[in-house]
Amino acid sequence: MSQDARRYFSLPSPFAMKRGGELHGAHVAYETWGALNAARDNAVLVLTGLSPSAHMTSCAADPTPGWWEDMAGPGKAIDTTRWFVICVNSLGSDKGSTCPASIDPATGEAYRLTFPELALEDVANAAHAAVSSLGITQLACLIGCSMGGMSALAYMLLHPGSVRAHISVDTAPQAQPFAIAIRSLQREAIRLDPQWNEGRYDIHAEHGGAYPDMGMSIARKLGVITYRSAMEWNGRFARIRLDPEQREDEPFGREFQVESYLEGHAQRFVRNFDPNSYLYLSRASDWFDIAEYGHGSVLEGLKRIHIEQAMVIGVSTDILFPLQQQEQIAEGLQAASAEVEFVALDSPQGHDAFLVDIENYSRAIGGFLNRLPAA
Amino acid sequence: MSQDARRYFSLPSPFAMKRGGELHGAHVAYETWGALNAARDNAVLVLTGLSPSAHMTSCAADPTPGWWEDMAGPGKAIDTTRWFVICVNSLGSDKGSTCPASIDPATGEAYRLTFPELALEDVANAAHAAVSSLGITQLACLIGCSMGGMSALAYMLLHPGSVRAHISVDTAPQAQPFAIAIRSLQREAIRLDPQWNEGRYDIHAEHGGAYPDMGMSIARKLGVITYRSAMEWNGRFARIRLDPEQREDEPFGREFQVESYLEGHAQRFVRNFDPNSYLYLSRASDWFDIAEYGHGSVLEGLKRIHIEQAMVIGVSTDILFPLQQQEQIAEGLQAASAEVEFVALDSPQGHDAFLVDIENYSRAIGGFLNRLPAA
Repeated sequence: MSQDARRYFSLPSPFAMKRGGELHGAHVAYETWGALNAARDNAVLVLTGLSPSAHMTSCAADPTPGWWEDMAGPGKAIDTTRWFVICVNSLGSDKGSTCPASIDPATGEAYRLTFPELALEDVANAAHAAVSSLGITQLACLIGCSMGGMSALAYMLLHPGSVRAHISVDTAPQAQPFAIAIRSLQREAIRLDPQWNEGRYDIHAEHGGAYPDMGMSIARKLGVITYRSAMEWNGRFARIRLDPEQREDEPFGREFQVESYLEGHAQRFVRNFDPNSYLYLSRASDWFDIAEYGHGSVLEGLKRIHIEQAMVIGVSTDILFPLQQQEQIAEGLQAASAEVEFVALDSPQGHDAFLVDIENYSRAIGGFLNRLPAA
Repeated sequence: MSQDARRYFSLPSPFAMKRGGELHGAHVAYETWGALNAARDNAVLVLTGLSPSAHMTSCAADPTPGWWEDMAGPGKAIDTTRWFVICVNSLGSDKGSTCPASIDPATGEAYRLTFPELALEDVANAAHAAVSSLGITQLACLIGCSMGGMSALAYMLLHPGSVRAHISVDTAPQAQPFAIAIRSLQREAIRLDPQWNEGRYDIHAEHGGAYPDMGMSIARKLGVITYRSAMEWNGRFARIRLDPEQREDEPFGREFQVESYLEGHAQRFVRNFDPNSYLYLSRASDWFDIAEYGHGSVLEGLKRIHIEQAMVIGVSTDILFPLQQQEQIAEGLQAASAEVEFVALDSPQGHDAFLVDIENYSRAIGGFLNRLPAA
């Protein structure tokens, strides 16, 4: 029996998508930790980055380490003895939620590119529906990391009154052109891979059929390069060579440790994330723009979000979501009269610091949650 | 008759390569502007980045604009009425010098991957031989941009006494892991392209044969992303969409202006640079490390360079060759008792600022050259 703590929420059917189209019989996967109190006012929702699942941290039903294992759990920053913690797998992700690799009930075949266009607003609406189904009308806190931080902004904007406090982690109020360029190139690497075949590859790669390993590998390596920082790698890899037996025995093959590090990341990812799902979520990230809700102004869009308190965290070494974007979020939420704490960290790990520099992120997130008043 | 101002210098044959192997009957292309004076002490050599040719600026024989057209010429910062200016095309580049696309006289076939391993020290030695052949024993100034800045460090270190003054532009004393990672991924995109075919593509792409367009396109786009800066693109592209008729009519096709900009750059490059030459020069850049000459210390390596004066220029928005690396060069040359001016610019264009922010780079370079004393 495989270890799995996921639960599933069936979305209202049809489930209308922001950019048109609808899903029938769709669902999202989620996990929970801790207990909802009688007042139903101690719920904390976490919205994830592009690739993580709902398995944020271990539990009895699934003791495998989660993607934020050291951040959430009993006595940790997101303390599951105080909070009822929910992590929802994004709609469109292949980690249990309905996604392009899912079967379209209308055809009995996988959606692939017939999946409707996906926006982060859809991710937010699906998460909100799941939370509501648990009898929760207002979250004590909504936490969003990376792409999930954009989904969180959409959640608060589209569902007024659904959130008391917010923690925004390494994210942005809109996609900027540098991030769009990176993601566009990642998508292009997949799309140009002949094995992608316009989305008609062997989804589970278990029949020995075609699968765009090459494109996914390039996309993942480019992702890892932009998720980390040059500063970290100077200390970590410098110019250290691989041992001769670890080198790649082909022209221009791997020779430096940093190349081997990227290869390891790619190998762990390539067959563990559905390429079409990746394309949909990647493009949803490009599309997100809070300014759409503010007559073209990021500030005006953010001012439509009404919450009591927020903490906005960013890191100076993040090249994908630069610190100025977190400053914008902090300013906008403050202008909307939330009480805002802005935390600028100097962690060397770049965008991924929230996954690595647990000490500093724990201190900020745990401190904020501990200071939250009872409802 | 095609316009061409290139001249060719036949390298000593055999020409020994740093990492082993030798070239027979090899040559480098170069162009010159202005006149060498009787004392032969007014020569300025420019070593280029990875892709430019020797055609730095226009001249009577080739009035087409050069890659540094606004920087060099009569009355410009590199004033060809005062200086005898030489630009050498890097050994290994396909812009006229012997490279992997050249015919190996031993076989009558193109070298392709049988070309010996290329180091920037070889690029430097070939340029030095060409300069010597012009009767110049000491350059008034050696200018190196980007990769050419590393070649210039090699030139000065390997040929003591050959340079009086040096201008170092947006470069590094060694490749750091972030830059290695980027270049490794560029090479991988080419190598994974089935049309690369271990280097056996249709070199001139004129017989309708296979050519790694896909890999070259990804490599170039990744290059352009790292040559510019997020800050510049926020102002230049923001989130501007393409007009509907400019959009790509296929799944996940181009939609934002920044995507179209990258595509334009890629299209201009893909068939205009030999993929194998690109791979060789890219890897040569990863290998370069002045610390090899300083018992593992960058500072000690730089201290072995003895010149009178230097100007070291860098730009705060450069993510490929970050400003700290130019600071290292300045400190090292100063420790070797050169008189050093360090210029940190805030140009928004990133690594490519030297090609774009002509106003600030002209002021620095022109000012330095104007202040140079007569020999």
